[in-house]
Amino acid sequence: MDAVSSIVIRPARRDDVGIIVGMLADDPLGRARERLENPLPPSYFRAFETLEQASNIQLVVAEEGGAVVGCLQLCILPGLSSQGASRGLIEDVRVATHCRSRGIGEQLVQWAIAEARANGCKLVELLTHNTRVDAQRFYVRLGFQPSHVGMTLRF
Amino acid sequence: MDAVSSIVIRPARRDDVGIIVGMLADDPLGRARERLENPLPPSYFRAFETLEQASNIQLVVAEEGGAVVGCLQLCILPGLSSQGASRGLIEDVRVATHCRSRGIGEQLVQWAIAEARANGCKLVELLTHNTRVDAQRFYVRLGFQPSHVGMTLRF
Repeated sequence: MDAVSSIVIRPARRDDVGIIVGMLADDPLGRARERLENPLPPSYFRAFETLEQASNIQLVVAEEGGAVVGCLQLCILPGLSSQGASRGLIEDVRVATHCRSRGIGEQLVQWAIAEARANGCKLVELLTHNTRVDAQRFYVRLGFQPSHVGMTLRF
Repeated sequence: MDAVSSIVIRPARRDDVGIIVGMLADDPLGRARERLENPLPPSYFRAFETLEQASNIQLVVAEEGGAVVGCLQLCILPGLSSQGASRGLIEDVRVATHCRSRGIGEQLVQWAIAEARANGCKLVELLTHNTRVDAQRFYVRLGFQPSHVGMTLRF
């Protein structure tokens, strides 16, 4: 097992979009949903531009030796409930297949938790598909509770 | 059962904050989390101001005959996954106790679904506490699937 001390977490750039989509597509659920083509469909770049303009959303990547090996999206959501506390919503956590089981996902999620706390959140939340049993175990190990049902309506 | 045709869904205003917090607090889970005091703790108003500045979040109320009888928060979340489709996140759905079972919650959620679609979302998602069995049945009736585990980490 390699050390993970060389990981850097930094904001995603436009030229990371291809590798991020590659990680989203390299997954039993993602495979059917993404279009990993060359050139990449422009909808991905339009979405990246919208993300860049959203001041309450951060898309970050984990970089190791110049290569992107993971990603995570964090949204800081203000709201009235819990005495007006913000919530952190974590989405699209992925680690490149050849880099798994080395703590990179944990570093990404711990970064998001720290960032949410620094922004005054009292809660971090996420939805993980019922079939992602390993992911659920991973999040419980990091202190999350499977306290909610994640309901989705797909058009 | 009264008709619900007189319901208007409109953006929440600063002077609705008290009644919204009242609805959030009038709930087994909310009771322990909120501080329904007079005057209301300033943290609620600070959160409302932050919400007003977030261009991708809408806090709306259902109004009937001039009275606020429900609320819902919708965030339109851009993201790279699903070919760069945005997602709608529904939060803090509440209907005043004396107005339940009259379709007001359904009108609020249908508004949010339509708004998410109009903003190009391919998915609407939400977390509902494991104990809210009635809410889960309600969302399934509106077409949602209990497809995910909602994981939370509360500080």
